[in-house]
Amino acid sequence: MSSHHIVRDDQEPALIIANGLECNNELLGQLLEWSPYVIVLDSAIERVIELGIKVDVLLGDFDRDFDAQFYKENHFPIEIVHTPDQNKTDLQKAFDFLIEKGHKAVNVVWATGKRADHTLNNLSTLASYRNDLKIVLFDDHSKVFLLSNSFKKWYPKDAIISLIPLGKVEGITTENLFYPLQNGSLELGYRTGSSNHVSEDGIVTITHEKGNLLLIESFE
Amino acid sequence: MSSHHIVRDDQEPALIIANGLECNNELLGQLLEWSPYVIVLDSAIERVIELGIKVDVLLGDFDRDFDAQFYKENHFPIEIVHTPDQNKTDLQKAFDFLIEKGHKAVNVVWATGKRADHTLNNLSTLASYRNDLKIVLFDDHSKVFLLSNSFKKWYPKDAIISLIPLGKVEGITTENLFYPLQNGSLELGYRTGSSNHVSEDGIVTITHEKGNLLLIESFE
Repeated sequence: MSSHHIVRDDQEPALIIANGLECNNELLGQLLEWSPYVIVLDSAIERVIELGIKVDVLLGDFDRDFDAQFYKENHFPIEIVHTPDQNKTDLQKAFDFLIEKGHKAVNVVWATGKRADHTLNNLSTLASYRNDLKIVLFDDHSKVFLLSNSFKKWYPKDAIISLIPLGKVEGITTENLFYPLQNGSLELGYRTGSSNHVSEDGIVTITHEKGNLLLIESFE
Repeated sequence: MSSHHIVRDDQEPALIIANGLECNNELLGQLLEWSPYVIVLDSAIERVIELGIKVDVLLGDFDRDFDAQFYKENHFPIEIVHTPDQNKTDLQKAFDFLIEKGHKAVNVVWATGKRADHTLNNLSTLASYRNDLKIVLFDDHSKVFLLSNSFKKWYPKDAIISLIPLGKVEGITTENLFYPLQNGSLELGYRTGSSNHVSEDGIVTITHEKGNLLLIESFE
């Protein structure tokens, strides 16, 4: 067994390649650099194999004339995980699978940018795993993750940061953002904290008391 | 004044071309077919002019070394609307502008698919205009609109329909959907109605009592 297949708990996040819009190769290369445990969702495998990426797990419901067996035979030792449950998305099933295996963190690509329902649903899903898995979604324009109740990170001046509430979020206080909040509320559909930016090189602090708050770092 | 500039209240929805990912030309052509009133947001005008589209209004904060005057001089009789307010997005300002002019309905393209913060924010914005403007967002994969409390429309069997709650939505009842709801609730982050589909050719009925519910029609 190659070192590629050792699960590195608490070290390297796993990588899920979902079935939406491809990201650029540079981003994908960065995320693959430390040989993460790679899960590919359903027929995305066709595009992933073309890119020459070594895949640990192919997971999906395989419901569209899709021959998972072909990959088992031709891409040994890939593991095939058939998940026919129609009450969860393949992305949720992949999160469940990783949690079951003891993983604590995962990066996700190709989960946004095509069907709006998939994008919204995938972003929404982050909330339901908030205590179980540290999830970061990447695409060419954005890095998205759910904030813990107290968040601190160093950012350069003018970095674009958006705070998007999944529903209603209360008791939000920020430091070092250009449009600050002091014990403020945000509510999807009414008031979001989109396209804020960092005031000065340094630590940004964001705390909130109640609700699920996404932080989106954006690149032009 | 050409007929192009007559405001056709209650007839043809206006068209807003936002500053995100371009849609395919066929979709854009369909939306332009009846010569709607066209508003372009900020520097998207550069891409729109290249496509040879006649624009009625160029609206934006023009805050990035952008020469709106050039378009005023070279694309007569385009109207330039400068909206420096930083508390609203250009899309919200365009909605406000249309409401002020008496429009009742608008289609929107190029509002999704690039930065996740813009996509989420633009979809979220639909809720705050629910009583003032009928808004439909289109991209290559999806058609998105906010549901009134009682919605009926004919769909073909197997059409993909997702119900995405902006926050929490209660008292949802559906007819002719494969995964039905009977006085059910959906909540972003916990339970969404993604990737449902139509059971049989015919009328789909969706009613809800409380909250803001997006309907997304998706195309593969």
